[in-house]
Amino acid sequence: MDDARFINVIGVIRTKFTKHEGTPIQPSTAYGALGTVKVYKHYRQALKDLEGFERIWLVYWFDRAREFSPLVRPYRDKAERGLFSTRAPSRPNPLGISAVRLTSLDLKKGLLSVEGIDVLDGTPLLDIKPYIPEFDAFPESRAGWMDASDSKESAADERFTR
Amino acid sequence: MDDARFINVIGVIRTKFTKHEGTPIQPSTAYGALGTVKVYKHYRQALKDLEGFERIWLVYWFDRAREFSPLVRPYRDKAERGLFSTRAPSRPNPLGISAVRLTSLDLKKGLLSVEGIDVLDGTPLLDIKPYIPEFDAFPESRAGWMDASDSKESAADERFTR
Repeated sequence: MDDARFINVIGVIRTKFTKHEGTPIQPSTAYGALGTVKVYKHYRQALKDLEGFERIWLVYWFDRAREFSPLVRPYRDKAERGLFSTRAPSRPNPLGISAVRLTSLDLKKGLLSVEGIDVLDGTPLLDIKPYIPEFDAFPESRAGWMDASDSKESAADERFTR
Repeated sequence: MDDARFINVIGVIRTKFTKHEGTPIQPSTAYGALGTVKVYKHYRQALKDLEGFERIWLVYWFDRAREFSPLVRPYRDKAERGLFSTRAPSRPNPLGISAVRLTSLDLKKGLLSVEGIDVLDGTPLLDIKPYIPEFDAFPESRAGWMDASDSKESAADERFTR
């Protein structure tokens, strides 16, 4: 418990999105948006066996997000909401998670091609986890204010940009 | 990009599990395992509006995990697998994610009751996100070696303990 809690950047995510404006707000609104994930050499061996998974979780650092603010106006809503009830990037720890489709994997080069990617180009990668429906898929789960929203807003603007 | 990437501990997760041995390996194998999440004062206002969500993601720090090792023998398998194809805790960044059921929320005290919790007592909390099926639920997603496993192993042992 006495260890410093630093983050190791293990790779970088490449997309066509260079600013928040127009970037998909979630993988599910990013159909067809292609990206590549470059994993640094030291971590490549750990990619073994990942090719059988249709989707992976990317865990990354929102490096261009505004600082933490407890209340935000999220996408798809007009009201101010508690930050933890949203997926906005201006979090106490700017950690993002995205379930993306894995379309190809080059173990040697540490290159993953992914589809449905919703992050800015150059986003620092922190972890990759396999997407496992038994652990991760709860399609009927009630989703509070999101369920009540009839907005189909799917792209970001600059509201959370630092 | 020049900011230090430190982690802020925003709370603590309380469970009945004090060692890895016997701890559920995932929320889905932790039916009925109750826990509480204490969110520190500075972050409590951000819990607003969370009560409408049936499930939440807890993002936490595996503070008692072994250091990173690229190949591991995961639960539910006999073979050595690439770490990123597993949910083992000995990761380059020991970040865990668990989708747990939110059963009650006391905004004022910063206390959340959760069900299906699979982490050790005292685990440092880093983030809370709403579980949103549109973004997170892919029940048909192929899951590589996990799909091929007929093991029903559901509890941990000490293999990843520091």
